[in-house]
Amino acid sequence: MKFARCGAPGQEKPAVVDGAGNLRDLSGVLPDLAGAVLGDLPAVNPESLPLVQGNPRLGPPVGNVGKLICIGLNYIDHAAELGVDPPKDPVVFLKATSSIVGAHDTVVLPRGSKRGDWEVELGIVIGKRAKYVSEETALDHVAGYTIVNDVSERGFQLERSGQWTKGKSCDTFAPMGPWLVTPDEVGDPQNLDLSVDVNGERMQTGNTRLMIFTVAQIVAYLSELMTLEPGDVIATGTPPGVGMGHKPPRYLSAGDEMVLRISGLGEQRSPVAQDR
Amino acid sequence: MKFARCGAPGQEKPAVVDGAGNLRDLSGVLPDLAGAVLGDLPAVNPESLPLVQGNPRLGPPVGNVGKLICIGLNYIDHAAELGVDPPKDPVVFLKATSSIVGAHDTVVLPRGSKRGDWEVELGIVIGKRAKYVSEETALDHVAGYTIVNDVSERGFQLERSGQWTKGKSCDTFAPMGPWLVTPDEVGDPQNLDLSVDVNGERMQTGNTRLMIFTVAQIVAYLSELMTLEPGDVIATGTPPGVGMGHKPPRYLSAGDEMVLRISGLGEQRSPVAQDR
Repeated sequence: MKFARCGAPGQEKPAVVDGAGNLRDLSGVLPDLAGAVLGDLPAVNPESLPLVQGNPRLGPPVGNVGKLICIGLNYIDHAAELGVDPPKDPVVFLKATSSIVGAHDTVVLPRGSKRGDWEVELGIVIGKRAKYVSEETALDHVAGYTIVNDVSERGFQLERSGQWTKGKSCDTFAPMGPWLVTPDEVGDPQNLDLSVDVNGERMQTGNTRLMIFTVAQIVAYLSELMTLEPGDVIATGTPPGVGMGHKPPRYLSAGDEMVLRISGLGEQRSPVAQDR
Repeated sequence: MKFARCGAPGQEKPAVVDGAGNLRDLSGVLPDLAGAVLGDLPAVNPESLPLVQGNPRLGPPVGNVGKLICIGLNYIDHAAELGVDPPKDPVVFLKATSSIVGAHDTVVLPRGSKRGDWEVELGIVIGKRAKYVSEETALDHVAGYTIVNDVSERGFQLERSGQWTKGKSCDTFAPMGPWLVTPDEVGDPQNLDLSVDVNGERMQTGNTRLMIFTVAQIVAYLSELMTLEPGDVIATGTPPGVGMGHKPPRYLSAGDEMVLRISGLGEQRSPVAQDR
C-alpha cells in the first residue's frame, strides 16, 4: 500500500493510492497518518474509497513527526567520495522537525546560503515503539519507507563553530514523500536504487545494498540510545554524488529543480528558492 | 507568574503557583501550556482558582515541545575549564524531544553508560514565532524561562563516531522545570545564579552574566537558521563544574541525586537510576 497526506500545510488529510495511481480519501477511515495509527495501518481496498478531488498539494506522508534522526556517512562509496574512513558506529544527528515539508514543496535557501546541497535518502517510518530491540526483530517496528531529501548548507554545516545542526535544520530542508510505502510493497530495503537529478542532469546514483549499516541495524542501534516512537522518521544516509563531492563542487541556486527517486517510493520534484 | 503542569506523564494539566507556593488548577482557563497559548499567557489571580489536590508529579512545564535546541560552550568560565577557545558563533545542537521529563523524574542512564554527567542550563521558552528577528526585538518572542538539565553521556557523546547526539538524546536526559516563569518575574536573564549539587556536594556554580552569547543574541541567531515556534525550548549552555571538568572526573551512578537551582526558577531534584 502507498499512503499519502494531501492538503494545505498543517491541514493535510490522509489518502491512499489506488491501482491507477489516483489518490483516494482515507479521512473517513482514520484521522491522520500519525502516531499509533502507523503501527496498525488499515488494509483497505482503495477503489472502495472516494477519489480525492482536484490536484491538492502533497504534504509529508507522516504527520506530527516526533523526531527526525539522520545517519551520516552510511554508504561505502559516499565515504570514499569524501575521502573519509567508513565509521565504526553509525554517525547519528538530528534535524529539526520544523524543516519537514512535502515532496514537491519549494526548498528555500536561507539568507546568506551559498552552498546548498542535496542528499537523497531512504527514510524509515517507525510504526511501533522500539527500545532495546534486536537486529532480528527491528523490522517489526517499521511502518514503511519514504524518500527524504536531507538538504544541507555546507558552509553553515562545516565552517561555523561546532556541530552539523546549523546546516541541516533550516526550514524546508527535509522534503519528505511523496508516499509512505508499506514494507510488503517495498520488498528488500537493501536493494533499492536511488538518484538525484538537478535541472535534468544526473547528480547522485546509488543503491541501498551499499549501506554500511542496514535498516535493521540502524533501528536496533538507535533503540539502545533512545525510544523510537510511532511517527519518528530515520533518514539512512546518502550515496555518492552530493554537490560537495563533485569536482569542482556544485551547489544549489534559486530557480533550480531537484528530482529525487527511489525504487518503488516514487519521486520528489523540489523547486529551489532563496530568502534575501 | 509561575506556571506548571502536573499529573501523570502525557496527562499533565496546567497549573499556576499562588502566593503561598501552592499549585492552583488552570485547566478551566486553558487546555494546556503548549503551542500558541504560550504567546498569550493569561493574567489570572491564582487565589481565584481551585487548589490542586494531593501532591501530583510535576511534568515538564511546557507541553508538546517542538524542538529542544541547545547551545554548547556558552560560558567563558566553562570553555576555560575544558581548555577550549570561546566559540566565535554559538555552538548549536539538538536534543531529541523524547528525552524531556519532569523536574523531579528519575534520570535513567542507558545500558552501557559509565560517564553520565549533569549540565544546569537556563531554558528559554518561545512564546511567539520568530524568524529573522533582530537582537533588539528577540525578547518579545520569549514566553518565559525554566531550568533544563542537559544530561550528557560523555562516552557516547565523544568517543563514538560523529556528532554529540548519542550522548545527548537518551530518554530522561532533559529534566525540565519545575516552572515556566514569566519574564517580568525573572527580571534580567543575564544575572541569574545557577548551581548543581550531587548527593549534597556542590558541583556547578555560575551566573548567566558570564554567557558568551546572551539570551537575546541566541534567539536572534537561531531565528536566522530556522523558525522558532511557540513551545520550542532553548537550553543556553552550562557554567563550570560538569563532571567531565572535575579533576579527576566525576560521573553519575545509580542512587545519586542531582539538585539543580537557578535564581527565581526553583529547583529540580532528580534521582539517578540505570538500565541494565
